[in-house]
Amino acid sequence: MKKLLCGSLALVCAGLFAAEKTDEIPLPTPNLKTNVSLKFALDKRRTSRTFAPHALSELDISNLLWAAYGSNRADGKRTVPAAMGIYSISIYAALPDGVYQHLHGDNVLKKVSSEDVRSFSDSRKMGAKAPVVLIMVADKEAFGEKGGKYEAIEAGAIMQNIYLYCAGNGLNTVVCGSFDGEKLAKALKLPASKYVILTQVVGCGR
Amino acid sequence: MKKLLCGSLALVCAGLFAAEKTDEIPLPTPNLKTNVSLKFALDKRRTSRTFAPHALSELDISNLLWAAYGSNRADGKRTVPAAMGIYSISIYAALPDGVYQHLHGDNVLKKVSSEDVRSFSDSRKMGAKAPVVLIMVADKEAFGEKGGKYEAIEAGAIMQNIYLYCAGNGLNTVVCGSFDGEKLAKALKLPASKYVILTQVVGCGR
Repeated sequence: MKKLLCGSLALVCAGLFAAEKTDEIPLPTPNLKTNVSLKFALDKRRTSRTFAPHALSELDISNLLWAAYGSNRADGKRTVPAAMGIYSISIYAALPDGVYQHLHGDNVLKKVSSEDVRSFSDSRKMGAKAPVVLIMVADKEAFGEKGGKYEAIEAGAIMQNIYLYCAGNGLNTVVCGSFDGEKLAKALKLPASKYVILTQVVGCGR
Repeated sequence: MKKLLCGSLALVCAGLFAAEKTDEIPLPTPNLKTNVSLKFALDKRRTSRTFAPHALSELDISNLLWAAYGSNRADGKRTVPAAMGIYSISIYAALPDGVYQHLHGDNVLKKVSSEDVRSFSDSRKMGAKAPVVLIMVADKEAFGEKGGKYEAIEAGAIMQNIYLYCAGNGLNTVVCGSFDGEKLAKALKLPASKYVILTQVVGCGR
């Protein structure tokens, strides 16, 4: 473990070492700070395109995924609203050693590929050396003909939560709407009914 | 002015009385609470479909609009990211006495119609007696052929900010993707290049 000054906050950034040895990484229970105000997060919300290669801690990844799209109630409803009660997005995490799907219910990252897709997860290769690129995958069949709009709205809400978590916790992030969707879909082994809708690079600043 | 217990928070809800006398309502400078944590807002984020008719204070409206889509930097960038640097959404507020466009730079609500559109701002008429329905209007021409996706992502981010502000401040809200877009566009006097992408009802609970 190393202590790094990340933005204005000292963050403990530990590598996800388990990732190299197993196909599943159980994440710790999310535990967001209670002293980060919504006002502060909204004030500091911005896009940053520089990323140090230091890994994030498993707790940071867990917090980030909970803020993004986690359940906040016993009935399974989440931090973002669901059109027609349907949650249509899956989140994948591209790490240096491969791509993992976040299994929401168990809060586990499950490896789906050993390929490092960070270098083509956005058209400007901003994520190539970042510790994590989150990849949002949508389901074409979830909403029928209204799908395009509803999936994009849901992805936008998740994106915003990621921005606010990063802003509140001294992390850098940039969302990417432009990428090679076919190449990513192949690497993630997506069925034809699913597609990458957004990617979002997250990491410490330099 | 009346003091109302709204959710678990006592909110000062004052009517927007000026609305009946002038076409412009200058809003006060936003001043969000610093003791509402991001964690609390994410925890409490949910959809509520009951609304008391009490008006919101002008400060609440101003805070809500800043959280939703306000500038958080001197260069004019905002609380949500802009694809290609383009902000493509305009926010309108449907109040009992008519519809107002939020003029972002001046933080003014400018009346565009004296029609009460709250009763048809969502297909379930949930906003009919609510104090305010926010109406997000997108620009078809902002992004060219990629527009549909980018506009919806931006609207989703704004929606999420509104949800989080409401969750953190004891207000109820529900987003509506289903409404009579043509009727709303006519009432708002939108040009052909613009369309309503989302509506969102906001108010105190009963």
